[in-house]
Amino acid sequence: MQDSGIKIVKTIDDMHQEATRLGLAGKTIALVPTMGFLHEGHLALIREAQRHGDTVVVSIFVNPTQFGPTEDFKAYPRDFNRDLYLARSAKADVIFAPSHETMYDNDHETFVQLKGLPDFLCGPSRPGHFRGVTTVVTKLFNIVKPQVALFGEKDYQQLAIIRRLTRDLSFDIRIIGVPTVREPDGLAMSSRNAYLSQEERLSALSLYQGLQIAKRMVTEGEITEANRIKEEVSRYITSHPYTKIDYVALCNPSTLKNINRVKEETLIALAVWVGTTRLIDNIVLKPR
Amino acid sequence: MQDSGIKIVKTIDDMHQEATRLGLAGKTIALVPTMGFLHEGHLALIREAQRHGDTVVVSIFVNPTQFGPTEDFKAYPRDFNRDLYLARSAKADVIFAPSHETMYDNDHETFVQLKGLPDFLCGPSRPGHFRGVTTVVTKLFNIVKPQVALFGEKDYQQLAIIRRLTRDLSFDIRIIGVPTVREPDGLAMSSRNAYLSQEERLSALSLYQGLQIAKRMVTEGEITEANRIKEEVSRYITSHPYTKIDYVALCNPSTLKNINRVKEETLIALAVWVGTTRLIDNIVLKPR
Repeated sequence: MQDSGIKIVKTIDDMHQEATRLGLAGKTIALVPTMGFLHEGHLALIREAQRHGDTVVVSIFVNPTQFGPTEDFKAYPRDFNRDLYLARSAKADVIFAPSHETMYDNDHETFVQLKGLPDFLCGPSRPGHFRGVTTVVTKLFNIVKPQVALFGEKDYQQLAIIRRLTRDLSFDIRIIGVPTVREPDGLAMSSRNAYLSQEERLSALSLYQGLQIAKRMVTEGEITEANRIKEEVSRYITSHPYTKIDYVALCNPSTLKNINRVKEETLIALAVWVGTTRLIDNIVLKPR
Repeated sequence: MQDSGIKIVKTIDDMHQEATRLGLAGKTIALVPTMGFLHEGHLALIREAQRHGDTVVVSIFVNPTQFGPTEDFKAYPRDFNRDLYLARSAKADVIFAPSHETMYDNDHETFVQLKGLPDFLCGPSRPGHFRGVTTVVTKLFNIVKPQVALFGEKDYQQLAIIRRLTRDLSFDIRIIGVPTVREPDGLAMSSRNAYLSQEERLSALSLYQGLQIAKRMVTEGEITEANRIKEEVSRYITSHPYTKIDYVALCNPSTLKNINRVKEETLIALAVWVGTTRLIDNIVLKPR
């Protein structure tokens, strides 16, 4: 299906054929995997993808296997026509938008699982989440056959896991992380921001502001104790209504293992409930 | 490295590049994954592969992750020069022979696992075995980028698992099963036959003969009770010295679930210890 310059592909067979056709023509493919409800963060990925591939494929699939039974799979915002408009405006070439039935047979039984990186940060709160992510990303890599795939740094742990997956399973794919895109006031772009009421939206800003407090503590105050930083950030965030901390963690940016002192580049990552919406954010702290 | 018409590739990067080069030239790749110590069964796979791909890649890798801690990883027979000679004689084009270190980083943590098919037949006796197989096959698919991959029907459960894996992970690869190649007296070819003493070799023939008894019971005797067939086959095999039954199973050829009566095509599969060597074999029973 053609739609003024953007091609819409709905089945695995058709995407395989399209990828083969592009490969034979010597075109490189850059993949931007998304769950749709595109925002500026996704569009930044699409624009960056153009620098790395001849053809930019955006996948849109709300992947059921990465949602827990009590999570928001059904409520997750969807708007295909809006996504199509936005992807086209950012000059994507192909939209791969399969149905649930296309992606998972009734007797699907194969999963890709890491034994380490998924245990940190969001892992404990979201059992099975990263298994769903790594399984669907493996499928998307096999379906779209890209040379390059791009992921946002907002989902830092996901990016670290996908880098490891790509290496461990020997994919011939370059993984590119793209910096978090923020609203003018600092809130990290997320499809889930659509869930927030006006008042919750105000409280949600405390995630970004909390990260900035950590940054100042490290770079200006030369405070290095992880616990002191975590306490200060948590205290600041929970001073805002509707907020509840899931975690605030300081860890090694590669291994995601907790650190006690900020001696070198350190990831500070957090997950916070704002009302019934769980938001995440992170920055890398660079001590002087 | 060139060796009178056969190319030897040792690293993942080099194999990626070779696969990309072949792909751009419009050549299709047929992959024959092996653990080396090639025999006529492997050569049949290589010859069949020529019918399905322009370039036949034979991988030779004794994969440590598919051996249990008490299994024969160290003892597994290896003879690279002999393999090279045999693969060349069967007209393979490329040998992919990576080292252990090339295939598994020290901090490897990604595994591909099925939740169903590996629980049957050899699964209970070899915990973790199929997880190792599915992980390394996924890696080999990503490294060699074949359009077709060939596997022997002797490892029937492995073939069923790889078919499912290929579908579930959306690989654009056709899986071809090739009939078991047997010695003139019926013993299924296996690299592990090299372990057998002369006397054990005689007893090992009882696996094939046991399967033939089952076949005759079904087709001539019109006996359909799975338990009666299993008992008869087990009794026959264990009447030979050095033998010990691991399992004799009658099951659905697709789901591998046990059946009680042979009403349609049924797989009879068995694993038998002959001395310290564990051998497997199978045939499909077709009732009249």
